[in-house]
Amino acid sequence: MTDPTGISDLRTPALLVDQARFERNLASMNEVLPGLKLRPHVKAFKSTAMAKRLEVDGHPAFCAATPREIEGLVAAGLTQDLLLANETLDTARLGALTDQANITVAIDSDETLAAAIEAGISKVLIDVEVGLPRCGCSLDNAGRLADRARAAGVEVRGVMGYEGHLMMVHDRAEKSAKVEESMATLLQAHEQVGGDIVSGGGTGTFDVNTWCTEIQAGSYTLMDTHYDELDLPFEKALSVLATVISVNKKGWIVADAGLKAFGMDHGNPAWDEGEVFFCSDEHTTLAPRELSAWSVGDRVRLWPAHVDPTAALHEQFWIVDGDSILDRWDIDLRGW
Amino acid sequence: MTDPTGISDLRTPALLVDQARFERNLASMNEVLPGLKLRPHVKAFKSTAMAKRLEVDGHPAFCAATPREIEGLVAAGLTQDLLLANETLDTARLGALTDQANITVAIDSDETLAAAIEAGISKVLIDVEVGLPRCGCSLDNAGRLADRARAAGVEVRGVMGYEGHLMMVHDRAEKSAKVEESMATLLQAHEQVGGDIVSGGGTGTFDVNTWCTEIQAGSYTLMDTHYDELDLPFEKALSVLATVISVNKKGWIVADAGLKAFGMDHGNPAWDEGEVFFCSDEHTTLAPRELSAWSVGDRVRLWPAHVDPTAALHEQFWIVDGDSILDRWDIDLRGW
Repeated sequence: MTDPTGISDLRTPALLVDQARFERNLASMNEVLPGLKLRPHVKAFKSTAMAKRLEVDGHPAFCAATPREIEGLVAAGLTQDLLLANETLDTARLGALTDQANITVAIDSDETLAAAIEAGISKVLIDVEVGLPRCGCSLDNAGRLADRARAAGVEVRGVMGYEGHLMMVHDRAEKSAKVEESMATLLQAHEQVGGDIVSGGGTGTFDVNTWCTEIQAGSYTLMDTHYDELDLPFEKALSVLATVISVNKKGWIVADAGLKAFGMDHGNPAWDEGEVFFCSDEHTTLAPRELSAWSVGDRVRLWPAHVDPTAALHEQFWIVDGDSILDRWDIDLRGW
Repeated sequence: MTDPTGISDLRTPALLVDQARFERNLASMNEVLPGLKLRPHVKAFKSTAMAKRLEVDGHPAFCAATPREIEGLVAAGLTQDLLLANETLDTARLGALTDQANITVAIDSDETLAAAIEAGISKVLIDVEVGLPRCGCSLDNAGRLADRARAAGVEVRGVMGYEGHLMMVHDRAEKSAKVEESMATLLQAHEQVGGDIVSGGGTGTFDVNTWCTEIQAGSYTLMDTHYDELDLPFEKALSVLATVISVNKKGWIVADAGLKAFGMDHGNPAWDEGEVFFCSDEHTTLAPRELSAWSVGDRVRLWPAHVDPTAALHEQFWIVDGDSILDRWDIDLRGW
């Protein structure tokens, strides 16, 4: 395949990023969270090319969900301030990078602290459970873990707590009250732990969570139909381009992008020109509003319901302006 | 990482195939559908190493859902009889392989036929809609398409029709009656089309569909919790190995395999030792029956709900006997 210049040259399914919408999303975020107030979460897009675009915008500190994402950021030269915002015992691979990059890991137990120490990782955040039933130590354990870390010569940079259970609260006043309550726990932990950083938040609470010193958001860059239910100042910029491979007079057409091309945990993708019937492995059956308008070979753009796992399924983003291809960004942080 | 010999050496999440169960699944299938009566569908596992294991068992003819899967099979030397059991306009890449491999593609329209002819593909099946709202021409179009193909010098090997809407019918008598009705359409089309092949079926109808000359099944090799609801003679052989990275006294533990490690379209994975609360990108929160039995660093095995999209997320299968690793099979047919 020669270098594609227009989307008609692309093999499908293909992941498209609308550049204008993407850039507006970045600008909207920058207004509220400039510079280090935002620690972009690369798990949402898994691309060092996109991370570099955010660095240009003044956000040089990143967080990641997996050791491989950290490795990839280091390999791409994005080394200034990397946070593994997750627990891991697979620390040796990160310890091996500490002379090349400024790496901090989250810990929430004696075991994860020990793994960090053993690997030679010299900086940690204490991860505190703030209401989401997932990782994070209890409030009464945070100070003790920080003391143990410091006793072992590890720098404790502060605390982290993710209020993921509150991202999708629709009412702003209700969300604000609940986030305040959740962050009260994190601030109490911070009093015990010390350090400069109080890290948390996400796209769904980016401007509501005013208690953190930095917000871990990533989905705002590309958005999805799930986050688009909220009243956020971000636009859907990510679509999956597919080719119509079959038209059935009974009322449906079939596109060649299926459940292997979409993160399906939040349900089917959406389509502006009709209804989505269902997804199979490599097909989506669509009911167009005007069946007669559709022919085999036509292209459709479908909106993913969840950006993070959708990006993880593809090899690259095609950055587009309408039907023109402006750039190709590898999705190089996939896998584990 | 040195070559792992036991699962404790593996980075997680990792995809495990229980060799004994896998081999029993192959034997059970062979009893019912020996040799060319089975055309294994590689979309389920996306691995030429696994396809080669099936070839050894006497199944040298394969079908695939994407051009890339066909390309990968050819590159691996599995060239005897490859069927793209799907419509595509992206035919040039397949036409380029026709001197190396025996390639047949499904067509269901003038446009898909024209794309095959233009690419120099010399063999087709006429794909007929048999009740699933997806690809396939109408019964009254099948003979006409076959005539057009033959007039252009293309060999029409027969018909294909996938009764995917009947895979999950639980009652065997009801399933049999519905499959018979569905296949009656396909057999009528076959009368018009001719050729040796009547291709259809899947794991859910492998022994009920006695009207096809060959069955397109793939999931039987590895199974999943969804297919396991049926009374099939196949066992779940595929699990995702994960590490416990957090234990919370409130009643949950967190494993480091999330919705990016599982095909989620059929719901959450299952766990033998307790309940699955929910999946996040890189976490699954589990409620163990005995919380006190669990520590950070323990390993869990989770059962995917849908094998095909789960395999597509991983780079390799680890073939295991208990905790011992016997082999590593690349999942080399991913992407498009």
